[in-house]
Amino acid sequence: MTLLLSNEEIDTILTMEMALECVERSQRSLEAQEAVNSPRVDTLAPTTVGETKGVYSLKAMSGLWPDEGMAALRINSDVLIWPEVSGNVRRDRLASADGRWNGLMLLFSMETGAPVMICPDGYISRMRVGAANGLAARYLAREDASVMALLGTGWQAGGQLMAHCAVRPITDVRVFSPNPVNRERFCRELASRVDARLTPVESADEAVEGADLVVTGTNSMEPVHQRKWLRPGVHYSAVKVQETDYDFLDAMDRVFLFSRNPANIRPQVYRTLAVETPEGTGGWWSERDTPLWERIEELPRAIIGAVNGRQSPDETTAFVNNVGQGLQFAAVAQRVYREAVAKGVGRNLPTEWFTQDVHP
Amino acid sequence: MTLLLSNEEIDTILTMEMALECVERSQRSLEAQEAVNSPRVDTLAPTTVGETKGVYSLKAMSGLWPDEGMAALRINSDVLIWPEVSGNVRRDRLASADGRWNGLMLLFSMETGAPVMICPDGYISRMRVGAANGLAARYLAREDASVMALLGTGWQAGGQLMAHCAVRPITDVRVFSPNPVNRERFCRELASRVDARLTPVESADEAVEGADLVVTGTNSMEPVHQRKWLRPGVHYSAVKVQETDYDFLDAMDRVFLFSRNPANIRPQVYRTLAVETPEGTGGWWSERDTPLWERIEELPRAIIGAVNGRQSPDETTAFVNNVGQGLQFAAVAQRVYREAVAKGVGRNLPTEWFTQDVHP
Repeated sequence: MTLLLSNEEIDTILTMEMALECVERSQRSLEAQEAVNSPRVDTLAPTTVGETKGVYSLKAMSGLWPDEGMAALRINSDVLIWPEVSGNVRRDRLASADGRWNGLMLLFSMETGAPVMICPDGYISRMRVGAANGLAARYLAREDASVMALLGTGWQAGGQLMAHCAVRPITDVRVFSPNPVNRERFCRELASRVDARLTPVESADEAVEGADLVVTGTNSMEPVHQRKWLRPGVHYSAVKVQETDYDFLDAMDRVFLFSRNPANIRPQVYRTLAVETPEGTGGWWSERDTPLWERIEELPRAIIGAVNGRQSPDETTAFVNNVGQGLQFAAVAQRVYREAVAKGVGRNLPTEWFTQDVHP
Repeated sequence: MTLLLSNEEIDTILTMEMALECVERSQRSLEAQEAVNSPRVDTLAPTTVGETKGVYSLKAMSGLWPDEGMAALRINSDVLIWPEVSGNVRRDRLASADGRWNGLMLLFSMETGAPVMICPDGYISRMRVGAANGLAARYLAREDASVMALLGTGWQAGGQLMAHCAVRPITDVRVFSPNPVNRERFCRELASRVDARLTPVESADEAVEGADLVVTGTNSMEPVHQRKWLRPGVHYSAVKVQETDYDFLDAMDRVFLFSRNPANIRPQVYRTLAVETPEGTGGWWSERDTPLWERIEELPRAIIGAVNGRQSPDETTAFVNNVGQGLQFAAVAQRVYREAVAKGVGRNLPTEWFTQDVHP
């Protein structure tokens, strides 16, 4: 049978501890060349939804984890727009499928090749992104970090909250986003997910004041982290390169990415000539002949002990989660699958629906 | 709703004429930069099925066709082995999923992003490969070609048979494969698909003798076409680069590929270090600084009239179908979808199974 899960079902079985363990262990496999990733491939063309002109994007990435005998393919089929919100350009995905979004995970057995699980990607994606930033905090943040600033109140911000609270003894989280309704809703909805107290605040500066961790989890295509926030001992964390600028990172004592490999950082994009997006302009992550790049380290190297994490309580550290890795999906999804099977969660579909009796 | 189709259902609605029309028109769009393709990405790692050591391969390619508002992702999740059969190395996919194979097509609406169809890839793949070689024959074979040699009796050979019979007035097809049982079974099973008479023969030489079209549709990783078969006016066709060698192609008056672009010809392969396959050895298709490469043309350029097809009855022509293109899948699959909806064929699944109410 092929297991069909919903986000809600995944939510009942996947904990941040599981996601952290799986992402960390899969990175050890990858560093030992015992796991493999394909970079992300985006295929774009212009499209129109009602009156709205957008860009249709079909995105795929895969990862194989032989230790667990599982492979994953993550697929996004989106209509993208880039609106300006509060002065910042954002990437947005339209809820173009009857008010819903399209993101899909397929999990395959490496022994039979068969699809063993199909599920939406949203909850797993939030957990694996969160886990990557959480692991960075495990290696880079002060062990006694207890106050967290969280900038952003969308889907990814929830994962960041859970992950940082899972790796550090966080008691207080100050939550900011430009829209008061959003930050209040976020604090209300996420309160039960963590032991820390969540407080909506009225400015980013107010959130950051006195925080041990400054975490961004936004859709912004422009820098959010600010150099003026630099304070000894603080760990700064971002879910994407665009949330940071050169000056900010350059001021840090230690800067980590998930990967320095350009193939991992920039998706391979195939498009018709008519497609223009605000994302083609580059930034510090594409200008590599700089002093900053010379000293950027990779988080998985810290995980395996090949480079040092934080070395003193006063260091400033930054982590930019610059990679959407198929292996991260494989790692978390295989655990979700095993838990779901063990607990009898989900709907069983006939695998024959998705396989065939001809040798193609 | 999301339509789930089986190969058998696709077989009742998809004709070779439809496949030829869709592949041809989509190539016009592609040449006009009004359609887009991602190259194929293969992600490999070692695996074991029972006692058999093989290579697990997760393969994906996508194509977007804005004219029809549809995008396709084709996925293969295979356990590969390379056995030697009758002295030739073949690539084989194990029927590792309870005796079945894993190949999947997802068709998405570019307007909503939603998956509108899910189906196995086998039948569509055979038809789109066939259509590509059939189109080559339409532009390169003599118009009065009536005798066809078909070498190979596997899945792809069936598509080659249908395609060539659809574009030329074929009356006789001589069918050879090393195993007599296979060639007799093929002739028996495919007889109803075409008007031509199918005759199993005992050698490749016997099949080729007097043929106007010489077509290979095999799993061979070593050359099948032979230079000694060269005769004026004949069109030679192959489903993959490995079926041809330099000497054979070099002797042709005109040589066409589907694409000269190396990114299209060689999949982007990601693998762990431990994986070795017999496919990494290269061949004429990777040695490009040759007189042969200087004069190789692309079939889509002939389709749009940018280069000439056959110019005289005596020319020898060859086509090597060197690309598995996501756009070909999108082109054929969208037609299958529309026919199935119009005829009420297939099973409707709730699209909500594959979408979500969170913005990932």
